[in-house]
Amino acid sequence: MTNRNMSALNESIKIARWILREKTLTLDTLNPQVKAVEYAVRGPIVIKAGEIERYLEEGGTKPFSEVIKANIGDAHAMGQKPITFLRQVVALCTFPELMDSPSFPEDAKRRARRILQGCGGHSLGSYSASPGVECIRKDIAAYIEQRDEGVPSDWENVYLTTGASDGIMTILRLLVSGKDSSRTGVMIPIPQYPLYSAAISEMDAVQVNYYLDEDNCWALDINELHRSYQAAKQHCQPRVICIINPGNPTGQVQSKKCIEEVLHFAYEENLFVMSDEVYQDNVYAPDCQFHSFKKVLYEMGPEYFNSVELVSFHSTSKGYTGECGFRGGYMEVINMDPEVKAQMVKLLSVRLCPPLAGQAAMDVIVNPPQPEEHTFKQFHQEKSSVLGALAEKAKLTEKILNAVPGIKCNPVQGAMYAFPRIFIPPKAVEEAKALGMQPDMLYCLRLLEETGICVVPGSGFGQKDGTYHFRMTILPSIEKLKVLLGKVRDFHIGFLKEYSGLE
Amino acid sequence: MTNRNMSALNESIKIARWILREKTLTLDTLNPQVKAVEYAVRGPIVIKAGEIERYLEEGGTKPFSEVIKANIGDAHAMGQKPITFLRQVVALCTFPELMDSPSFPEDAKRRARRILQGCGGHSLGSYSASPGVECIRKDIAAYIEQRDEGVPSDWENVYLTTGASDGIMTILRLLVSGKDSSRTGVMIPIPQYPLYSAAISEMDAVQVNYYLDEDNCWALDINELHRSYQAAKQHCQPRVICIINPGNPTGQVQSKKCIEEVLHFAYEENLFVMSDEVYQDNVYAPDCQFHSFKKVLYEMGPEYFNSVELVSFHSTSKGYTGECGFRGGYMEVINMDPEVKAQMVKLLSVRLCPPLAGQAAMDVIVNPPQPEEHTFKQFHQEKSSVLGALAEKAKLTEKILNAVPGIKCNPVQGAMYAFPRIFIPPKAVEEAKALGMQPDMLYCLRLLEETGICVVPGSGFGQKDGTYHFRMTILPSIEKLKVLLGKVRDFHIGFLKEYSGLE
Repeated sequence: MTNRNMSALNESIKIARWILREKTLTLDTLNPQVKAVEYAVRGPIVIKAGEIERYLEEGGTKPFSEVIKANIGDAHAMGQKPITFLRQVVALCTFPELMDSPSFPEDAKRRARRILQGCGGHSLGSYSASPGVECIRKDIAAYIEQRDEGVPSDWENVYLTTGASDGIMTILRLLVSGKDSSRTGVMIPIPQYPLYSAAISEMDAVQVNYYLDEDNCWALDINELHRSYQAAKQHCQPRVICIINPGNPTGQVQSKKCIEEVLHFAYEENLFVMSDEVYQDNVYAPDCQFHSFKKVLYEMGPEYFNSVELVSFHSTSKGYTGECGFRGGYMEVINMDPEVKAQMVKLLSVRLCPPLAGQAAMDVIVNPPQPEEHTFKQFHQEKSSVLGALAEKAKLTEKILNAVPGIKCNPVQGAMYAFPRIFIPPKAVEEAKALGMQPDMLYCLRLLEETGICVVPGSGFGQKDGTYHFRMTILPSIEKLKVLLGKVRDFHIGFLKEYSGLE
Repeated sequence: MTNRNMSALNESIKIARWILREKTLTLDTLNPQVKAVEYAVRGPIVIKAGEIERYLEEGGTKPFSEVIKANIGDAHAMGQKPITFLRQVVALCTFPELMDSPSFPEDAKRRARRILQGCGGHSLGSYSASPGVECIRKDIAAYIEQRDEGVPSDWENVYLTTGASDGIMTILRLLVSGKDSSRTGVMIPIPQYPLYSAAISEMDAVQVNYYLDEDNCWALDINELHRSYQAAKQHCQPRVICIINPGNPTGQVQSKKCIEEVLHFAYEENLFVMSDEVYQDNVYAPDCQFHSFKKVLYEMGPEYFNSVELVSFHSTSKGYTGECGFRGGYMEVINMDPEVKAQMVKLLSVRLCPPLAGQAAMDVIVNPPQPEEHTFKQFHQEKSSVLGALAEKAKLTEKILNAVPGIKCNPVQGAMYAFPRIFIPPKAVEEAKALGMQPDMLYCLRLLEETGICVVPGSGFGQKDGTYHFRMTILPSIEKLKVLLGKVRDFHIGFLKEYSGLE
């Protein structure tokens, strides 16, 4: 063979090897637990919504001019304005030269100075201790004590987190053992916020469903807890119960009696309690009130308060601030074994610390302007305006949806979502099954394609077999919400007609 | 029994149950993979340092007046000032009312406006898409193209992360299969940054060590890679190789030839490549230069550039900005299977998005003031001042340490750490063993207790058997660093004397 031929041959071999070379990481070799994860809030329907948005931007035409994203509790994206005071404090922390600016109020400067005093080198750019900035932990403990009318809170039990999701994942990681993980049962409400099911899939734990009672405003029924627990005991060891109060996606606010029952049940069955209370400031129904799991536990007496292991989660993303992008949050951990706590701190330290701007934002939420401060009036106005509008939108949504034949919506007592039950005609159910999709996914896809409204199918949250729902946020402005609800109504009526052959 | 006795008995039973009640989550029932995690950078020595700090604050006395934390690359905590321009942009994004302030430069306002345009509702308080804000991803891709002198970068391959650690954990999560995880081998350098070993423990993968060559300035030796790989093949499937360049804790800067060899090896053995390049701006030795793995891969020709799966990580925490608290970072993913990419985005979406302020900070780093902009001069001065001081401190550290008998320190070519080898007399080794601790842990504890200097034992990073090291940052100010190094010298000499019986 000539040199030239030889060289050509070598080249061909190289190209052949390259073409035949398999990837190291493929769908076949991917961690199967990742494959099992589902997260509907940003799932296929939202990807589709993004595609339609781009199509419209590029001049494409649809029967609507914009996509309305009612799929995720993202208040600012829906036009809610930030709370001025919170942003002032964070801006001061970010750029301390502003301390000299007369246009920033002294109240905000005082808080920013205090936060910076707690930061290494007085800079938001330093790592904090892994559990968070000490003075912020102390402010949070003081807030909890005040909220719970004197129930003691120890700041060393408070851990800042990167949004509440991060805290929830951390606690589950402690509870779910790797090797025999398939034996650890995690009790979650159905419907649930799909972070829970996603985490359970990722960690290969067993999802233990307890069903909320739709006929009773999504209340938690203690008999259902017992049923669920006993059934699960047959195939796994339930070790933890998760509660979301106020509910996501279901919007119910739990009664004190119901919380007592849950805590008593957890005490009896030795369950670790995870209480997702990120919507604690979002209660709209006049006959409802937020009761923290911790306060109820306290009132049940020392044998409960000194023994039930309880973690409560909070966040900057919800409430009246809606600061999702800051990724701020905290958890308060009660009765955790001190050795386990040390292990948790070790685990947190691997990721170094939660973002400092998020920690600062959390500090403002737990330490807002007081009546005697200059900034109080504006702060209070802004807060009331957000919460007032949400209460109005909660009522409006319930009212309009319930006027549509084939839609039934429980009162939105709290949180930020309506989770109406929708009647889907058998023909549509059949069509969906033929397409290999859930009937409410078909419904939501059609809704998106025909109206531009993006909501999440109930199947993404879990629901009783044979029932169908969707979750929509109540975050759009009142004007937009009315338009949205009107479109949902028209769409639903058309959908019923089409599939019931009533045209 | 009387009612009263009955009631007393019931009370006693209640108390007995409460006392006997076991916790749900104990060290015995904790996820054993969490127990296995070690993270020396914030490990026992740092906890001890915190205790001493509190003791001093409360008026206690020690042979020193302050603890100097040289354990962690936390520049601002060590007094480094933030880059003004970066903070201006983030403050403008946080509090857009500042757009009207004449004291903020137009260059900063332009960037802030652009970032906010990319945010939902033009607010830093909205969630971004899970891979990050689109315009920031585009800026990053443009930066990479420029850095790599025209090697193409697709913005859709760029993913914002919560610090680099978050990205590294995400990629490992994809690669390490849950069920048969103990069969997935992850090749890491020794010494290494202990995030890697911690992640491997948490995910129950197999840590496959390849040793860097201390006698050759911690260079990576290709023969050692082959040895390590072949040995690992006996008991696991090595699927990924991690490289840290410039090195942490070892401070070496890899040559182009060495990178080529690694990439060739990865190509041949079908390994996924994770390239931790967070110190890419921290190169001090005049004869060294940062070569990105991606550029070297490109120059190796299309059969490599179109096939080797490579992820590169970057961060706001290091470089000349040192913005650790913002938790900003990104990864660029090359040749990842599109289906795997979709799975990764799904996984990222469960945690919603990286903090927006960190994303904005990352944007400034990749899109800094240009020579024609007004802010360029100040920016350039600040940047040069930080990098110049680091270069000086790198040299100073090496020089002073090498003058101490029994200490040998390789040149600090890059990154932010010295990792000197220390001679520990056999008697001290014996004493440590009797105490059940690593000899360099004994050494570092003694150093801390006698001088207040907090460094991390080499055993926390891994080292050849029978060799001992510690990692210290070069971040303190020059004055403080001189004091620190003087104290280390005196301590070391005293330690040698004490344990060699030479007093």
